[in-house]
Amino acid sequence: MKACIITIGNEILKGRTVNTNAAHIGKFLTSRGYEVERGITVKDNLDEIKWAIDESFGKYDIIVTSGGLGPTFDDMTVEGVSRALGLELVEDRETLEILSKRYKELSAELTPERLKLAYIPAGSHAIRNPVGAAPGIWLSGGKSSILVLPGVPREMEAILDQADSLINKNDRFYYEATERLAGVMESAMAPIVNRIMEEHAGEVYVKTHPLKSETRNPEIDVEVSAYADSAEMAEQAVRDTIREILAEARRMGKK
Amino acid sequence: MKACIITIGNEILKGRTVNTNAAHIGKFLTSRGYEVERGITVKDNLDEIKWAIDESFGKYDIIVTSGGLGPTFDDMTVEGVSRALGLELVEDRETLEILSKRYKELSAELTPERLKLAYIPAGSHAIRNPVGAAPGIWLSGGKSSILVLPGVPREMEAILDQADSLINKNDRFYYEATERLAGVMESAMAPIVNRIMEEHAGEVYVKTHPLKSETRNPEIDVEVSAYADSAEMAEQAVRDTIREILAEARRMGKK
Repeated sequence: MKACIITIGNEILKGRTVNTNAAHIGKFLTSRGYEVERGITVKDNLDEIKWAIDESFGKYDIIVTSGGLGPTFDDMTVEGVSRALGLELVEDRETLEILSKRYKELSAELTPERLKLAYIPAGSHAIRNPVGAAPGIWLSGGKSSILVLPGVPREMEAILDQADSLINKNDRFYYEATERLAGVMESAMAPIVNRIMEEHAGEVYVKTHPLKSETRNPEIDVEVSAYADSAEMAEQAVRDTIREILAEARRMGKK
Repeated sequence: MKACIITIGNEILKGRTVNTNAAHIGKFLTSRGYEVERGITVKDNLDEIKWAIDESFGKYDIIVTSGGLGPTFDDMTVEGVSRALGLELVEDRETLEILSKRYKELSAELTPERLKLAYIPAGSHAIRNPVGAAPGIWLSGGKSSILVLPGVPREMEAILDQADSLINKNDRFYYEATERLAGVMESAMAPIVNRIMEEHAGEVYVKTHPLKSETRNPEIDVEVSAYADSAEMAEQAVRDTIREILAEARRMGKK
């Protein structure tokens, strides 16, 4: 199961906002057995959002977007998704009722900017936002399912949790574990990692992360991960590989 | 001046690593007058890296990549860039000398995995890495300049600083300022922002960031930014716009 994460917002591109949303969504999808293959960040621009959807649609089992769902002129995600897929925008009655009630309590009018939040692509359904105004949107049935989330982290997280049963197919599982090796140069581990990766191609993935200076004060994290058809199989593959790596590291006279 | 940031690494896609590198590079480029238009994160895979370069080359004045420069099998950025541009890999003599010396001091061999770090695309030049082994790479002369940086943050930052004179053209300037407005709903500000954006199209950009609940406890950051041909002009445009927004907010009876 393959996934793509699209985040929308000038503030991410400018580095004003660190893209913690992409990390949160990436963790969420990975822990449900998805391989996140690509991340795209585009600015608040209709053509760019449309490009990101066009580029991804049909290539991934799921596309998750975050950002661009608010009431302002540059919140364009819903329109961008609709245009990319050639879908009309239709009023979502439940969202409209929620918005009407909420703004009425505040004696505030349902202006066009607020009304906009109740429009979703035809054939999709809204996912209630328990902590904000803009709902999430779930669109499936095509070559890729699409989940549209707001950019405010606590709203994004709340809606993602509510979409868990739609996302989690429970037929693919991920496991990872990390071992820290002090005094081991990444370049010294490289041939060992190469060999293990060749011998276990497609079963496990080994990646080394250098933490300190390769030549002055070497220290690395060796991360081993696996996807499998059961949680037990994924864990077993990781544990076996870690045992093999630690044996090799000891043979090198380190750790 | 337009820019694209490409970050490479499975760990970013899985959310194991938050993409602070993209934020750092985004800030750096923006403060030098670039508009960062797109961010792409790809996994450690040759086809994906090549796709990201193919997709970006010629569209942006500068492309900055980060990640995938180490000695392991899945560090493929240099090869991906070379393949995308149809350039051979050539030995960089200075880097080779540095690496030879450094590993010799450690009585370590110059294995193929270590030697790999001295190869760069023909026509590019290496930028010394003062805090690690893999150099940065600068490639210009084509439709886009490309800067290739490591993924380890302190190495990436050190090489980026060294490349400043190559990146900074000093002919385009950016300024931004943010005002926090308590008690103002984002949807209430939306029509005001729309009007200002229409009146000052291309001069300033106004973006509102909701901090708390729109309907329960509204609070927003109003971010105003501008690019201009002098630092003074950019700052002036931002200050004038902020004054206008604050006057409108007072008229709404808030702040």
